[in-house]
Amino acid sequence: MGKGIPVSGVVSGGTSGADGASAPPAAVVSVGDELLLGETVDTNGSWLARELSDLGFRVIRRWVVGDDPEEIREGVGGAISLAEVVMVTGGLGPTPDDLTLPAVAGLLGLPLRTDTRTLSHLEERFRARGFGSLPEQARAMARVPEGATILVNARGSAPGSAMEVGGGRLCILLPGVPMEMKSIFEEEVVPLLRERFALRLEPVCHRLIHTTGIAESLLAKEVAKLGLPAEGPVSLAFLPDLRGVRLRLTSRGAPGDRAVEEALGRFEELLEPVVAPFRYRSGKGDLAEALGQALQRSGMTLATAESCTGGLIAKRMTDQPGSSHHFVGGVVAYANEVKTALLGVAPKLLEEEGAVSREVAEVMASGVAVRFGAGAGIGITGVAGPGGGTEAKPVGTIWMAVSLGGEVTSRREFFTGEREDIRERGAQAAMALLLRELERR
Amino acid sequence: MGKGIPVSGVVSGGTSGADGASAPPAAVVSVGDELLLGETVDTNGSWLARELSDLGFRVIRRWVVGDDPEEIREGVGGAISLAEVVMVTGGLGPTPDDLTLPAVAGLLGLPLRTDTRTLSHLEERFRARGFGSLPEQARAMARVPEGATILVNARGSAPGSAMEVGGGRLCILLPGVPMEMKSIFEEEVVPLLRERFALRLEPVCHRLIHTTGIAESLLAKEVAKLGLPAEGPVSLAFLPDLRGVRLRLTSRGAPGDRAVEEALGRFEELLEPVVAPFRYRSGKGDLAEALGQALQRSGMTLATAESCTGGLIAKRMTDQPGSSHHFVGGVVAYANEVKTALLGVAPKLLEEEGAVSREVAEVMASGVAVRFGAGAGIGITGVAGPGGGTEAKPVGTIWMAVSLGGEVTSRREFFTGEREDIRERGAQAAMALLLRELERR
Repeated sequence: MGKGIPVSGVVSGGTSGADGASAPPAAVVSVGDELLLGETVDTNGSWLARELSDLGFRVIRRWVVGDDPEEIREGVGGAISLAEVVMVTGGLGPTPDDLTLPAVAGLLGLPLRTDTRTLSHLEERFRARGFGSLPEQARAMARVPEGATILVNARGSAPGSAMEVGGGRLCILLPGVPMEMKSIFEEEVVPLLRERFALRLEPVCHRLIHTTGIAESLLAKEVAKLGLPAEGPVSLAFLPDLRGVRLRLTSRGAPGDRAVEEALGRFEELLEPVVAPFRYRSGKGDLAEALGQALQRSGMTLATAESCTGGLIAKRMTDQPGSSHHFVGGVVAYANEVKTALLGVAPKLLEEEGAVSREVAEVMASGVAVRFGAGAGIGITGVAGPGGGTEAKPVGTIWMAVSLGGEVTSRREFFTGEREDIRERGAQAAMALLLRELERR
Repeated sequence: MGKGIPVSGVVSGGTSGADGASAPPAAVVSVGDELLLGETVDTNGSWLARELSDLGFRVIRRWVVGDDPEEIREGVGGAISLAEVVMVTGGLGPTPDDLTLPAVAGLLGLPLRTDTRTLSHLEERFRARGFGSLPEQARAMARVPEGATILVNARGSAPGSAMEVGGGRLCILLPGVPMEMKSIFEEEVVPLLRERFALRLEPVCHRLIHTTGIAESLLAKEVAKLGLPAEGPVSLAFLPDLRGVRLRLTSRGAPGDRAVEEALGRFEELLEPVVAPFRYRSGKGDLAEALGQALQRSGMTLATAESCTGGLIAKRMTDQPGSSHHFVGGVVAYANEVKTALLGVAPKLLEEEGAVSREVAEVMASGVAVRFGAGAGIGITGVAGPGGGTEAKPVGTIWMAVSLGGEVTSRREFFTGEREDIRERGAQAAMALLLRELERR
């Protein structure tokens, strides 16, 4: 597999998902012309596969088919022949291109009947939205396959349904609107699957270690040196993206199970010496969250002065709800005049050292902290490209500085990739620099 | 289909892709545990489907299978039984979980042999990167199926290959690294497919109309009133996302063909009265690009003052290469003290009207323009949530103002959704407000 793409590389034995040979097999069929033709990326199918896998199923295949009854029948038919649980998502709405329900009911030989409870739910929903009566087209959503278990759609209109296929197998239809699909899955499908498959499930438990500032290949090399057991209860995967590398520890067993948590804990301890300098802790896996919490812990506030990242750091800090407690604001100093007027960068310094220099980054960081009355300041200036590179300062050169209680630290990085990648990596590195400085105190 | 999700709704006859019944059928198989288990979303499969469709194939189905020889054989075997062209992506690298090549060669009964040209390419590549000799593991990438056409990987190591399947059908293997996959497809696969399928291809031509500031349902209603022909050479799809609604016009025929372009042009003209107030023109479909060009045309520069969007507008403006010509910089005025100190918002105004008010947005817009010496200023302040809402100013309330040559325009919007959605919508609406003001001049 190539470097730099988000793939999972299992380095120690075991599995990255639930592929225990005896776990019940599951398959996912995503329905929609927009998915088939690639206009919309099939995130629903990915989400369902991940959930089924964590729940303890062995996901064996996924299909994407168009809004065509024949294609839906063939996809679902193929899935049913292989898997004990077949999840179908999409094509359950009221429009003429919503063909999943009649196609699957036809495949399974189940007549459609109107479900009165669903009909009342629909009528209520439409009344609540100010419609007088249920439009004829919408009534179609109350038609369900005979004998199916109706899965209530608390967040939307079209319900899901679960059908017995024979041999104890289940075919489950869910709408394609992500919010509705997820809510029905969590509220209705999970309990149903847990009850039905109970002891046969082989759930897996994950633990994520978030790192930034070290390349996947280097991290893998360092981890390899630890000589971790090739076979054991815990397996390890590297999940790299632009912002860093996540290490995912996976162990068979239900979340909360003591033996499982202990095994994961021991494995995590073994990794600690390697990951510690690059690690950050965040529930959502976002460095901005970790940095926000570190600022809060130290009673510090932050202001940012951004040139090449153009507001990306401020945007990421304020992505976090409640960020007003520790984030004061920032300056996007794209033009040199702004660096001078608002941040106190002397024109002479700009002339002598250039806008992309240690000195300018440092004055930006301390200038914005003073100006905004913040305890901490970040300054960042660089060449994001595609133009603007020179031999001395090629595209990808970024100077970043952190001011903390008046003390300034700075460093230079060279990043590769497109403009967007360089900006993303630069913002992440500058935030990590501040986090490390806060931790050193 | 649900509202508010990115689906294509064809409102006038015709098709949204190449599903002309006589176009050669194509299928895509994506290989990888990380795809199957949903850790990585299958963007490669989507991309290939879109390209094949535009090229004139009828994409009929997609599969996602894991890194397992049996699964790969079954997926590819299923695809071959249905389609004349089968594209397989992923699992071609040098690591032990790269199993696509032996699995498919086995399925087709083709022995693997070492290709000397590929071997030299690999040796050169490794030498250029400072490796002395080709590692044994990497040599595996020079093994190719006998009789296959080798597809050179100019951007990476593992080559692609095209194999005859019988009945004039083709099975094409591509690596999973997106950049390499795309480059091989464009450089090697497209000419091969064009030559092979020539006149049987039914290419489609798209034209995109970008709108923002009008909901999909409303736009669809207005378009319906135009009474466009239900059957005709051009079909129309609505592609909504957080930032607006794209209208995609599709017509059969090769790009550049005069009759096709004329048909698309006529259809676009029919739509113009409805879309004009909401339309923006951008090659990449980004309002920031359109706004940058409008600023450039009018010789204006822009500065931004952002509260609730926290730097998102500045970030989007500077996403554009060359934005330093029209974007000066901005202030992220998250704390009220910053609004006062840097933008001249009087504390009394903040107290009397509240930070989320017409008056504050207007002072922010004009204040930042004056302060940064820019001709245009944007001010935006609102409640992004999840906390901070009141009865008078619920979560989603946003005041935005535009200052243009000293003249100030403002408006209020109420957006729904999560914090992220509200910020995204707010930033887009503020940028659209400035674009409209620039156009009015």
